[in-house]
Amino acid sequence: MTGLFITFEGGEGAGKSTQAALLEQYLRTRLPADAIVRTREPGGTPGAEALRDFLLFGGHDLSLRAETLLHFSARYDHVDQLIRPAMAAGKVVISDRFTDSTAAYQGYGRGQGDPAILDLIESLRKRTGISPDLTFILTVPRPVALARLRARANRPDRYETANEAFHARVAEGFIAMAKAEPERCITLDATQPPEIIAREIATHVATRLPPSREA
Amino acid sequence: MTGLFITFEGGEGAGKSTQAALLEQYLRTRLPADAIVRTREPGGTPGAEALRDFLLFGGHDLSLRAETLLHFSARYDHVDQLIRPAMAAGKVVISDRFTDSTAAYQGYGRGQGDPAILDLIESLRKRTGISPDLTFILTVPRPVALARLRARANRPDRYETANEAFHARVAEGFIAMAKAEPERCITLDATQPPEIIAREIATHVATRLPPSREA
Repeated sequence: MTGLFITFEGGEGAGKSTQAALLEQYLRTRLPADAIVRTREPGGTPGAEALRDFLLFGGHDLSLRAETLLHFSARYDHVDQLIRPAMAAGKVVISDRFTDSTAAYQGYGRGQGDPAILDLIESLRKRTGISPDLTFILTVPRPVALARLRARANRPDRYETANEAFHARVAEGFIAMAKAEPERCITLDATQPPEIIAREIATHVATRLPPSREA
Repeated sequence: MTGLFITFEGGEGAGKSTQAALLEQYLRTRLPADAIVRTREPGGTPGAEALRDFLLFGGHDLSLRAETLLHFSARYDHVDQLIRPAMAAGKVVISDRFTDSTAAYQGYGRGQGDPAILDLIESLRKRTGISPDLTFILTVPRPVALARLRARANRPDRYETANEAFHARVAEGFIAMAKAEPERCITLDATQPPEIIAREIATHVATRLPPSREA
């Protein structure tokens, strides 16, 4: 693998999609457009996008283990059909969410830290075959996130309508992961103006760009 | 677990559904109707039935690992929400297909015995939390199966339209599993008349019925 894999993580309304788009803009000043792939999870491939719809809007009452496997099914398709080939071609891949989200939402949120579900997630994570080089975890107090979500016109997905205790556990999960892997995870205060956050992200990414690809 | 878990396995057109129905009929002469649960895979719960449709008729070109996880997602939901509770209540559960089908179709058929995919299947099988007490593997030569399938009015699913080499590997897979677990797996020649096969199955099952449940 000669590429670079960057993920954005955090709760809803933290500004992940905005920052992923701003990072792509920045990278276009450094790299040819076809060397950058911006994607998202769940999703990123036709099959995984169909699973995203099933997961977020299907209204199916799956058991927690089943839901966890469904997320990894979408992820393995995403890795096999999009991320791994892009990395092998030396590209920079930017994903809005990846495995940390499954750990936070299914492991900490819905699973409340149950060791059996965390162990299942860890076992599937190890088999993914690829892991992020750099992860930006955007944190924002829940009231700020809620105000941002209300300003959006999107149909709310199942997580946006979950209760506050759930979101508090998800936030704790992200903090725990950032602490466990400080080399990979950079936590950013997402109440700052987007352009300030974008500049900090660009500074971190610039040091990791594959030298052969610099313009 | 005080119940009994019986699975039917084999290729399309082997008569699994017919035999599962005949076994249920027989059990109704021995047990109260609410002590018998007949189900199928992929499926058996609302979420897993929706995944069945996604898998068999969705036309999504998932990677093999993703497809394998999707089958186990449906299976874990089936186990968590239907099979485990039924077993805990002492019932006899009859399932048309279970994990052996994933090993045969994804592991041997599509995966051509690739150790990485067989290892993934084995790892998820071990985590299922329940395994069949008795498995009937119905074998039938492919031309006989094809003639039976042609006589059905069903829309063909993706496996029914797969090539002959695929079906030969699936059949080899079932044979390998039967050899590996002779205590659990009983292989039956499904070219025999259905009532003859049903009698043999009933004889095997009768010896395993929970004594407290006998009428």
